[in-house]
Amino acid sequence: MLIYIYIIAITAEAMSGALAAGRRNMDLFGVALIAFITALGGGTVRDILLGNFPVSWTQHPPYIYLTIGAGLATMVVARFMQKLHRLFLVLDAMGLIAFTIIGCNVALRLGYQTPVVIMAGITTGIFGGILRDIMCNRTPQVLRHELYASVSMLVAILYLTLLELGVSDDLNTLISFSSGLILRLAAIYWKLSLPTFSYAPQRWED
Amino acid sequence: MLIYIYIIAITAEAMSGALAAGRRNMDLFGVALIAFITALGGGTVRDILLGNFPVSWTQHPPYIYLTIGAGLATMVVARFMQKLHRLFLVLDAMGLIAFTIIGCNVALRLGYQTPVVIMAGITTGIFGGILRDIMCNRTPQVLRHELYASVSMLVAILYLTLLELGVSDDLNTLISFSSGLILRLAAIYWKLSLPTFSYAPQRWED
Amino acid sequence: MLIYIYIIAITAEAMSGALAAGRRNMDLFGVALIAFITALGGGTVRDILLGNFPVSWTQHPPYIYLTIGAGLATMVVARFMQKLHRLFLVLDAMGLIAFTIIGCNVALRLGYQTPVVIMAGITTGIFGGILRDIMCNRTPQVLRHELYASVSMLVAILYLTLLELGVSDDLNTLISFSSGLILRLAAIYWKLSLPTFSYAPQRWED
Repeated sequence: MLIYIYIIAITAEAMSGALAAGRRNMDLFGVALIAFITALGGGTVRDILLGNFPVSWTQHPPYIYLTIGAGLATMVVARFMQKLHRLFLVLDAMGLIAFTIIGCNVALRLGYQTPVVIMAGITTGIFGGILRDIMCNRTPQVLRHELYASVSMLVAILYLTLLELGVSDDLNTLISFSSGLILRLAAIYWKLSLPTFSYAPQRWED
Repeated sequence: MLIYIYIIAITAEAMSGALAAGRRNMDLFGVALIAFITALGGGTVRDILLGNFPVSWTQHPPYIYLTIGAGLATMVVARFMQKLHRLFLVLDAMGLIAFTIIGCNVALRLGYQTPVVIMAGITTGIFGGILRDIMCNRTPQVLRHELYASVSMLVAILYLTLLELGVSDDLNTLISFSSGLILRLAAIYWKLSLPTFSYAPQRWED
Repeated sequence: MLIYIYIIAITAEAMSGALAAGRRNMDLFGVALIAFITALGGGTVRDILLGNFPVSWTQHPPYIYLTIGAGLATMVVARFMQKLHRLFLVLDAMGLIAFTIIGCNVALRLGYQTPVVIMAGITTGIFGGILRDIMCNRTPQVLRHELYASVSMLVAILYLTLLELGVSDDLNTLISFSSGLILRLAAIYWKLSLPTFSYAPQRWED
């Protein structure tokens, strides 16, 4: 199941990357590159941090074509994106959660300790979006808006707790995925967010 | 032959990094660091993505000295750079293409599949410039101007096609290099560029 | 000794990351993440560049908790930070130098050549701050202000010179650490800085 959701997820992420590139008036190549990095960057950072070589996508060329294709297709369908905004948010939420669970599994398989497994899940979930924003020269959105990165963290913790309790992997995936999706959609609907921290020193840069 | 072009290339790239650092009023150290990262960052990202350790420049200290030296020297000659602008563009184009061919060869040697080899070539060609722009807090130029990243891609594809056809490596390098150089210079001269994608949503951030 | 200074160092770096996140109005999660990256990012980049897997912090979960905790605590104590500004600068200087010496030791242990050892020291010292600034969308401060990155370089060179001369490791650490600390504090007090390079081309982007 997770593999189908993963394919939807990287497509949605690629499209979000393409839109961000469009806001910076990038050319075709830039759109394709940002789409690729947004979709597969989170997993790439995770693999590098965990020393998990070869990096996943280098072994699966179809993912390269899919993300680049989705990015370029976005240029054509962008005018309709505003109408599809809600669908897009749901796909993005599915991606966030699927990425998180997949990231946890990679770190578990490599024998890392629990906090590192959680961070691997979060990294897979959110770092594509962070790289997208860095490359488009804006402050990472995922650290400022409604519950997003924190949903990734809670899903990772829930997944590992159920695993510890001996819940079968299929059931665990189902429960973790649905809980995360409900939480993320609730956060969007009711505009739930974490408290923010605003710091504005009067006199100096530090 | 490629090794001489490579040395010219990293020198040109280091100089472009130093100029970008100068636009941000960085200190001597910042200039040296940005020069180094612009010149050797593309190869570093490639090596990390491909799991190719130790990273190339760590085995060749002279490249460290050369790029840092070129960066610092740029501070002295910057006033003349505008007059040398055309020469500089030619050196930069030679660098882009030499980097691309070298990057492809590294990935080929490690046994990666064709699309990954192409991406390794492009990464080597353009990521130094992307890291430079990220560190200088501006949107990557290589994704917005005249044909640049796309020249890298076309060179990679041409090189792999000729390799597949059994053309000898020297001849292949010569053909790929000249074709890429002509294309890049033509793009500069006639201001050829890819179509850009501009996206400006009216109502929300997404 | 270095281990205690290291713990102080990552705490100080985590706090500086949290303050930077606060200036961008990030949420709780963003503050924790930037704190973590600022404190442990330099060592992470070093480990990845040197191919030193597993990355250090993945083997020491307490460092994860410490840096995230320090980041979150900063939200509470930020109002007092301006009064503690001097203390903070001293802790940060201790961190810079401890990181540098530790970074050199990692590269030495892996058998890298001298210039790479120096770069590993500098990377460990300054890259956390660079990543912090990239993620907060500002030009890296460490490359523009009073002697900072250059202190890291001088400490690395001094440490390696004394090592070469056969000075015992404890004495070497003591001398290198004190010299670096004095130099950094002197730089802050007398506003010593490297010459900067300002480049403002009249007619074009290059």
